[in-house]
Amino acid sequence: MRATAALYRVFLLLALLVGLDSSAQALAQTDPLPSWNEGPAKKAIVEFVQATTDQASPKYVPPPARIAAFDQDGTLWVSHPMYTQVIYCLERVPAVVAKKPELKNVAPFKTVLSGNREAVAKLSMKDLEVILAATLSGMTVEEFTAEVKQWLATAKHPRWKRPYTDLTYQPMQEVLRYFRDNGYKTYIVTGGGQDFVRVYAEQVYGIPPEQVVGTVGGTKYGYARDGRPVLTKEPKLLLNDDSAGKPEGIHLIIGRRPYAAFGNSTGDRQMLEYTQAGDGARLMMLVLHDDAQREYAYGPAQGLPATRVGAFTQALYDEAKKRGWHVISMKNDWKRIFTFEP
Amino acid sequence: MRATAALYRVFLLLALLVGLDSSAQALAQTDPLPSWNEGPAKKAIVEFVQATTDQASPKYVPPPARIAAFDQDGTLWVSHPMYTQVIYCLERVPAVVAKKPELKNVAPFKTVLSGNREAVAKLSMKDLEVILAATLSGMTVEEFTAEVKQWLATAKHPRWKRPYTDLTYQPMQEVLRYFRDNGYKTYIVTGGGQDFVRVYAEQVYGIPPEQVVGTVGGTKYGYARDGRPVLTKEPKLLLNDDSAGKPEGIHLIIGRRPYAAFGNSTGDRQMLEYTQAGDGARLMMLVLHDDAQREYAYGPAQGLPATRVGAFTQALYDEAKKRGWHVISMKNDWKRIFTFEP
Repeated sequence: MRATAALYRVFLLLALLVGLDSSAQALAQTDPLPSWNEGPAKKAIVEFVQATTDQASPKYVPPPARIAAFDQDGTLWVSHPMYTQVIYCLERVPAVVAKKPELKNVAPFKTVLSGNREAVAKLSMKDLEVILAATLSGMTVEEFTAEVKQWLATAKHPRWKRPYTDLTYQPMQEVLRYFRDNGYKTYIVTGGGQDFVRVYAEQVYGIPPEQVVGTVGGTKYGYARDGRPVLTKEPKLLLNDDSAGKPEGIHLIIGRRPYAAFGNSTGDRQMLEYTQAGDGARLMMLVLHDDAQREYAYGPAQGLPATRVGAFTQALYDEAKKRGWHVISMKNDWKRIFTFEP
Repeated sequence: MRATAALYRVFLLLALLVGLDSSAQALAQTDPLPSWNEGPAKKAIVEFVQATTDQASPKYVPPPARIAAFDQDGTLWVSHPMYTQVIYCLERVPAVVAKKPELKNVAPFKTVLSGNREAVAKLSMKDLEVILAATLSGMTVEEFTAEVKQWLATAKHPRWKRPYTDLTYQPMQEVLRYFRDNGYKTYIVTGGGQDFVRVYAEQVYGIPPEQVVGTVGGTKYGYARDGRPVLTKEPKLLLNDDSAGKPEGIHLIIGRRPYAAFGNSTGDRQMLEYTQAGDGARLMMLVLHDDAQREYAYGPAQGLPATRVGAFTQALYDEAKKRGWHVISMKNDWKRIFTFEP
């Protein structure tokens, strides 16, 4: 009787082991990129990850070197009609003016407060820099984080009427997870503000603050009135993490070359070139916004309408073709754009 | 008979499970800090790690937030009689002059080439900056890495006649491993050059390049003659990662506050203050060099001889006592200083 009970337990254990094994197999065989249509883009991603994580492959990359870099605006989330952070800065102007009433009748603050969209759209780069400096510096790091969190909780995208953080691309979320599940450290490398993106990157993309590389200003160490040490954001640019600034930012923060890089605009060109210049297997991909119905369509590559927000020029398209970079067509490669879609 | 065989297998499995369990216990009971004498410093480290990794403790810190920061010079390795990187820069001068012979008769290069130690010791901070700029910028990132590797392979410390990378403190190597074994990300936060320390940090400390925060200059993206993209080191300071620069550098590269910080000099004061200002359990420690026989003795805290290289002032000592920072006595707390010692 005891022996029968023991036998039963062995069978239970065996069943458990077999069960675990087959569910592990099932997991391995599950499509890691279910929102991607079968095609050359999906194939390139899967082949790259398999080759660089297979110890028997000549393209094998040891785990500590597995770095993948992702642009954010237009690559991981929507950046039209305007970059989210620029909207944030414009919408922060009333709060800044409330604290400093002397700015109320001074350009460019006056223009922003007027609510005249045409006038705002015509603001010069210098005007914009003044607004960015006023809304992104002068406060402590903690105050800034609180301001951004508060805004993100209520601000909505004009087209989808949803929080901006809902507007990440489901296929790219799958790529981030797929890379991480295969031992890659995923980094955001963005022209946006490093401190801005760090506020939500962990929650929205599963990317911790130390893996966000962005445009960054200095901070100044000092003490609050109660003696508590604080870091205050200064209007001093340390790195403009766009175009040539992207490989420079990668070197500054990461210190080694990525094996994979994803972008969507001319601002990502140098990051992709730098990635490709390393030895062994490298994956370079560009998202082409060619789906006006489900998202936006802009180029001017491929005859799509031109834009100043994340332009994908014909020259970039030609370079991609020449260098073997993969162009992802949102229209053809992505089954689904957003997580909230049916 | 089959039932008996099954019973036997159950016993085998149980024995295996029990065996695994007791070896896991044995592992847990192994002293993680064998080169430390029993005392308040060792006790503080072990209690901090246990409390912050025990889910039942009110001091529990979730794994992604487990960040520990370590100064390098004088905290992880020897920094006397002079910082290793300064010796590197001085010893690189002949190579720089060989490439630019016009510098041969120009101060301060002429002084360094003279080999007159007294004259070299009297060089002003401005002279030193000229030498640092000439030896740490102007080359590509890859060239710099190769130059540092080559130097490290042959240069020897004047006292121990060993490579500088042999002169790390065994007790601190144990602390680094102990923290990592408990889910902490260990960062170097050094006044030394970020690119310099990154060359050897992975091999010497098990710390990858992306976890080195240091004094850092800009790089410039461009193309070599063959069209290959290169990053060239510029003589433009982005961050002086010393004193107030340490919390600023931590924010720049890591983006969150450490739970533990280790230093040894006045240049680490702000990093420890910043670490302590966070919520919950925090560990702040300072290494006091009070062992002239086995290493060096300098203060001027505790009446030890004053130094300009990693000074531990009486004011810092008093602040440590007042704020509950732990002072590690090399003489009393460390059984062994170096790995190569018997």
